Amino acid sequence: MNKNPLHIVILAAGKGTRMYSKMPKVLHEIGGKPMLARVIDTAAQLNPQKICVVIGHGKEQVLEKVQRDVVWVEQTEQLGTGHAVKTALPHLPAEGRTLVLYGDVPLTDAATLENLLAAAGNEVGLLTDVLDDPTGYGRIIRNGGKVVAIVEEKDADAAQKAVKETNTGILVLPNAKLEGWLNSLSSNNAQGEYYLTDLIALANTDGIAVHPVQVAASHLAAGVNNKVQLAELERIFQAGQAQALLKAGVTLRDPARFDLRGRLKHGQDVVIDANVIIEGEVEIGDDVEIGANCVIKNAKIGAGSRIAPFSVLEDCEVGSNNHIGPYARLRPQAKLAADVHIGNFVEVKNARIGQGTKANHLTYIGDAEVGRKTNFGAGTIIANYDGVHKHQTVIGDEVRIGSNSVLVAPVTLGDRVTTGAGSAITKNCEAGKLVLARSRQTVIEGWVRPEKGDKK
Amino acid sequence: MNKNPLHIVILAAGKGTRMYSKMPKVLHEIGGKPMLARVIDTAAQLNPQKICVVIGHGKEQVLEKVQRDVVWVEQTEQLGTGHAVKTALPHLPAEGRTLVLYGDVPLTDAATLENLLAAAGNEVGLLTDVLDDPTGYGRIIRNGGKVVAIVEEKDADAAQKAVKETNTGILVLPNAKLEGWLNSLSSNNAQGEYYLTDLIALANTDGIAVHPVQVAASHLAAGVNNKVQLAELERIFQAGQAQALLKAGVTLRDPARFDLRGRLKHGQDVVIDANVIIEGEVEIGDDVEIGANCVIKNAKIGAGSRIAPFSVLEDCEVGSNNHIGPYARLRPQAKLAADVHIGNFVEVKNARIGQGTKANHLTYIGDAEVGRKTNFGAGTIIANYDGVHKHQTVIGDEVRIGSNSVLVAPVTLGDRVTTGAGSAITKNCEAGKLVLARSRQTVIEGWVRPEKGDKK
Amino acid sequence: MNKNPLHIVILAAGKGTRMYSKMPKVLHEIGGKPMLARVIDTAAQLNPQKICVVIGHGKEQVLEKVQRDVVWVEQTEQLGTGHAVKTALPHLPAEGRTLVLYGDVPLTDAATLENLLAAAGNEVGLLTDVLDDPTGYGRIIRNGGKVVAIVEEKDADAAQKAVKETNTGILVLPNAKLEGWLNSLSSNNAQGEYYLTDLIALANTDGIAVHPVQVAASHLAAGVNNKVQLAELERIFQAGQAQALLKAGVTLRDPARFDLRGRLKHGQDVVIDANVIIEGEVEIGDDVEIGANCVIKNAKIGAGSRIAPFSVLEDCEVGSNNHIGPYARLRPQAKLAADVHIGNFVEVKNARIGQGTKANHLTYIGDAEVGRKTNFGAGTIIANYDGVHKHQTVIGDEVRIGSNSVLVAPVTLGDRVTTGAGSAITKNCEAGKLVLARSRQTVIEGWVRPEKGDKK
Repeated sequence: MNKNPLHIVILAAGKGTRMYSKMPKVLHEIGGKPMLARVIDTAAQLNPQKICVVIGHGKEQVLEKVQRDVVWVEQTEQLGTGHAVKTALPHLPAEGRTLVLYGDVPLTDAATLENLLAAAGNEVGLLTDVLDDPTGYGRIIRNGGKVVAIVEEKDADAAQKAVKETNTGILVLPNAKLEGWLNSLSSNNAQGEYYLTDLIALANTDGIAVHPVQVAASHLAAGVNNKVQLAELERIFQAGQAQALLKAGVTLRDPARFDLRGRLKHGQDVVIDANVIIEGEVEIGDDVEIGANCVIKNAKIGAGSRIAPFSVLEDCEVGSNNHIGPYARLRPQAKLAADVHIGNFVEVKNARIGQGTKANHLTYIGDAEVGRKTNFGAGTIIANYDGVHKHQTVIGDEVRIGSNSVLVAPVTLGDRVTTGAGSAITKNCEAGKLVLARSRQTVIEGWVRPEKGDKK
Repeated sequence: MNKNPLHIVILAAGKGTRMYSKMPKVLHEIGGKPMLARVIDTAAQLNPQKICVVIGHGKEQVLEKVQRDVVWVEQTEQLGTGHAVKTALPHLPAEGRTLVLYGDVPLTDAATLENLLAAAGNEVGLLTDVLDDPTGYGRIIRNGGKVVAIVEEKDADAAQKAVKETNTGILVLPNAKLEGWLNSLSSNNAQGEYYLTDLIALANTDGIAVHPVQVAASHLAAGVNNKVQLAELERIFQAGQAQALLKAGVTLRDPARFDLRGRLKHGQDVVIDANVIIEGEVEIGDDVEIGANCVIKNAKIGAGSRIAPFSVLEDCEVGSNNHIGPYARLRPQAKLAADVHIGNFVEVKNARIGQGTKANHLTYIGDAEVGRKTNFGAGTIIANYDGVHKHQTVIGDEVRIGSNSVLVAPVTLGDRVTTGAGSAITKNCEAGKLVLARSRQTVIEGWVRPEKGDKK
Repeated sequence: MNKNPLHIVILAAGKGTRMYSKMPKVLHEIGGKPMLARVIDTAAQLNPQKICVVIGHGKEQVLEKVQRDVVWVEQTEQLGTGHAVKTALPHLPAEGRTLVLYGDVPLTDAATLENLLAAAGNEVGLLTDVLDDPTGYGRIIRNGGKVVAIVEEKDADAAQKAVKETNTGILVLPNAKLEGWLNSLSSNNAQGEYYLTDLIALANTDGIAVHPVQVAASHLAAGVNNKVQLAELERIFQAGQAQALLKAGVTLRDPARFDLRGRLKHGQDVVIDANVIIEGEVEIGDDVEIGANCVIKNAKIGAGSRIAPFSVLEDCEVGSNNHIGPYARLRPQAKLAADVHIGNFVEVKNARIGQGTKANHLTYIGDAEVGRKTNFGAGTIIANYDGVHKHQTVIGDEVRIGSNSVLVAPVTLGDRVTTGAGSAITKNCEAGKLVLARSRQTVIEGWVRPEKGDKK
C-alpha cells in the first residue's frame, strides 16, 4: 500500500434541488448523521493519506455541521463531476491513486471499497451495480474481465440496453494519469458539463485496464436525489442495524420498528420492545428491558434496569436495577444510583439521586442532590427557579417528602426529615424532624354550593 | 362533453355481512373518511351532471355520516347490481351516459375514470384488472380491442380460465340504452339476482362496442368485503400519501409508520419522525419538527416550532418557534403565540398564551388569557371549574407564578405579579406585587415517625 | 386412536449458544410466551397419553418458567436428538406411537401435526418442508409416496441436491420399534452425536413405510437458533394473530403495527389504532376504541369505552362508556364503573371509582373507594402512603375536590362534600360541607423582585 498511497476525493457540492430544502443535499441525515459525515467516516476507515471534500452549495452550513479533519475544496461553479475532481487536483500528489466518492451516496461501506481498491491495483477500478431494470443508467460494456466502455442510455443499441450492469460513479484512478485525463475532458455534451465517466474511454485509449467490481447490494451504491430515496436508504440502514443487534443477541420485538441514530453498546439479555428510538451514544447493561416507544439519547443504563413505555431519557445516567417510567422524563444531568424508582409523570433534571430513592408519581426534581432511600410523595415539586436564577436543593437519606409539597430552593432537608403533605418548605429542615407548612382544616358553615342550573 | 353529459350512480346499499359490524359497509373508513364519502368526492371531481347514491342497509347512518349534495335513492330490497342501478333510473335522463361506481371500492381515482370515459366515448366502457391469480373473477374475453363477453369462473373453459384480465364491475353505459337493457336483465341465476355484468352481452347483441380499460394498479379497483381488505387498502392508501409528501420534500423518518387521515399543508424542511398520526386539517410551517408518536388533529403549527414526542394536539394553534412537549396536550382553543414553551405533562385548553411565555412542567391551563414572558412554575393548576361553571383567568405579562400553586378562577393577575410557591390564589393580584397564600413552616416536636415493622 | 395411543416427546435440552443469553433457548418468548410452553400447549391439543419434555441446560429456569403438567426428563449430556429421545424411553410404553417435537420450533400447529399423524398411521410419519433454497438441509428422497432416505448436504449428489423438499426433524414413530431403533443408532459421525434422522434408514431396513407430509408454510416447522430467527417468527406469529382478528371483524388501522402477547376477547365494532400492544388476558366490549400506542395488560374494558392514545392499563377493569386518557395509567385493582372519565396524566391504583366520576387532569388516586358523580379537581393527590403503611381513602357521591388538593389517608369525605382548591385535607369531612385547609392570601409589600442581570 505504501507504494501506492490512497487519496480520496468526495464530491459534495450539489444543491439537491429535488430535496426542496434550504439545506444542501449532503447534510440530510441517514441514521441521525449527515450523509456527507457518513461518507467521510467510511473514507477514514480506509486510512487514506488525505481526504478532499469538494463543496459548493451551502458550504457554510456544510462546514458548520460536518466538523471533520479533511481538506475542504470549494467548487464555485458546478460544471460536472470531472470538473469537481479537477478542483481537488492541487491537493493530490502525482503518485498513488485517488478514490472518488459522493456525499449523497451514504451507505457505501469500507469492505466494498477495499474490494474495489484491491481489484484496481495500479490501474482503474470502477464500482458497478447489476439492476433488474437498468433503464436510464450507463451500461458497463465488458470485454473479458475488463470494462471497455460505459454507454449511456441514449447512445445504447439494443444489445447494450440489455446489459444490466450499470455504472455507480464510484471509481479509483491512478494519480499519475489523473491530471492529464481531467484536462482532456470535454464539456461538449447536452448538459455542457465535464463527466468523470469519460475517463473510462481515456483509460482504454491509454491502455490502462479498468477493473469492475460489483456491489453486493444496490443500496451500497445508491444515491439520494429526493426524500423518497432518503427514506428508502434510511429504512435499509435501520434494518441493517437491527439485524446486527439481533445477531449480537439483543432481542428486538419488531426489527422493523426500531431506530438507532448513533451507537448502542449493550450487554447480554437486553430486550427492546417495539418502536424504540435510540440516539447518540447509548450504553445498556445486562438484563435491561426497554419498553415500547421509549426515546433514549446519550444515556447509560445499568444492569437489570427496566425502562417502562413512553419514557424519554437524554444525557443521563441510570444505575442498576432501576425502575423507570412509564412516562418518565430524565433530562440532562439526571444521575440515578442503583435501585432508584422514577415513576409516571415524573421529570428529573440535573439531579443526583441516591440508592433506593423513589419518586413514583407526578413529581419534578430539578437541580438537586438527593440521598438514599428517600421517598418523594406524589405531586412533589422542587421549585428550583425564581424566575431569574436556578437554585440548589439538598435532600438527605431516608427523607419522606409529603405528597403535593413544594420545596423552594435553595433549601436543605436533613437525613430522616419528614414533611407533611401539602407543605411549602421554604427553610432548611433539621435531620429527623417532622416539618409542616400547611393550614388547619376548617369547615365553612352556611355555604351554598353552586348547582347545575344555577345562574352563573 | 356537453353533448354527452355524465351521470354517476354509486351503489352503496349492501350490508357487508363479513365486516361483522352494526355499521353499513360503506361507512367504514379509509384514511379517516367513510369509503362512500371518498367515492362521492372522487365522482365529484369528474364534474357530472348528477350523482345518485343507491342506499339500503343502514341508510339513516349513511345519511347522517356522509353529508354530501347528491341524489339519495333507496333500494329497499337488495336484488343485485342491475336492480340497484334500476332504482336510480327515474333520476337519469335519456341522453348522456352513466358511470357506475361502488361505495365499497374506495381508491378508484379520477384519472382512471377519465381514461375509462375517454375510451368509452358514446359506447360502453368497462374497467378491468389483470390479476396474477384471477381465480373466482369474471374473465374478460376480448376480440381485438373490444370485449365480447365476461365469462364467470364456473362457466369458463380452460382457455378462458387462463385469461388474467378480470371484470372490476366499474363501467360506463349510454343512457339511451340503459333502461331497455336493465329491463331485459333476468334474475334466472343461482343467486336470483339481476347482474350488471349481463349488460355486456346485451351491448354486444345491440352492436354497441364495449371498450375495456385496464387499471394501473389493482388497488384502484379493489373492493372491501371484510376487515382484512379494509386494512390492506388503508395501508396502500397511507403509503401513497406518504410517497406524495416525500416527493413534495417532507422528511418522513419511516414512511411505513405514518398516518394521514385528512389533509396536511406543509412548508419547507418539515421533518416528521416515526409513528406520527395527522388527522383532519393540519397546517405546518417551514422548519417544523414533529417528534415520534405525536397525534395532531386540526391544528396549525407555526414555522420553526418543535413538537417533541408523545404530544397530542387538537383544534389548536401553535405559533412560530414554540417548544411543545414531550407529553404536551394542547386541547381545543389553545392558541399559542410565538416563542411559547409548553413542556412535559402540561395541558392547555381554551387559552390564549402570549409570546415567550413558558409552562414547562406538570401544569394545567384552562379558560385563560395569558400575557407575554410569563412563567408558570412546575405544578401550577388553574382551577377553572367550580363543579358547575367554568370561569376565566387573566394573567398579565412577565408574571411569575410560583410552583405548585393553584389559581382559583375567576381571578386576575396583573403584569409582573409574583406569586409564592405553594399558594392558592383566590383574589385578584395587583400588578408588580408579590402575593403569598401559604402557611408558615413549623417543626412538630416529639413526633415519632412510623417505621417498617411498626404495627399498623 | 385408542388402539394406537399417542405419546409426545419434546426436545428442549439445548443451550442455544447463538442466542447469547443466560436463559436456555427454549425460554425465549414468542407472543409473550416461552417457546417451549407454546410447543407443550400445542402438543396438549392432540390429547396425547403423555407428554415428555427432555431438558438439560438451564433446567431449573425451565421448570420455574414453564409450569405445565408434563413428564420432565433430564438429559445430563447433550449427545444428539437420538440420545435425547432415548432418555425419554423409560416413560414410553411399548404400544402406540411417539411424536417428536422441538422446544425451539414454536409455531407448529395442531392441524399440521394431525395431518402428520393421520398420514403415518401405524408406521413412520415425517414432516417435510419445500424450500426455495434447500442448501444445508437434509434432502427428502422419495420413492412414490414414501421416503426412502434423507440425504445430508455433504453426502448429496447433484440430482439429490436439486431436491427442494427437506427434513424438518418432526416425526412420528411406532413405539414397538422405537427402543430397538434407538439402540441401533451410532454416533460414528463428525459431531459424535446420535441422530434421529438415521431412524429413516432403519425404518426402511425394517420395511416400515415412512410417510412424508409437507408443511403448508415454512414457519410451521422453522426453528430458532438466534435472535434474528426469533424476531422473524415473532412477526410471522403477530401477523397471523392480526389477520385472525381482522377476519373476526376487529378494525386494526395497521396490522403490521399490532402486538398481541396473550389472548384478546372482543365484541363487535372494536377499533384498534396503530402500535397498540395487548398482553395477558384482555377482554374488550362492543364499540370500544383503543387509541394509538396504548399498552393494555390483563384488563377488561366495557362496551362503548374510548381509550385515548398513550394509555397504560394493567390488571384493571374499565366500565362501559368510559373516557380514558390520553396518558392515563390504570394500575392493578383500578376498578372503574360506567361513565367514568380518567384524563391526562392521571394514575389510578387499587381504587374503585363510581359511575360518572371524573378525574381529568394530573391526579393520583391510590387505595381509595370513590362514589358516583364525584369530581377530582386538576392536581389532586391522594396521599396513601406514610412512608411505611398504605392507608385507605373513602370519598362519597357528588363530592367536589378542589384543584391542587391533597387528601391525606386515612380520611373520609362524605357525600356532596366540597373542598377548597389548594387544601390539605387531613381529617374526615362531613357530608354536604365546604371544607378548606389553606391560608389567607397576602401581599408582601416592599419586596424587590429578582431580575435578569442581578447578582446571584
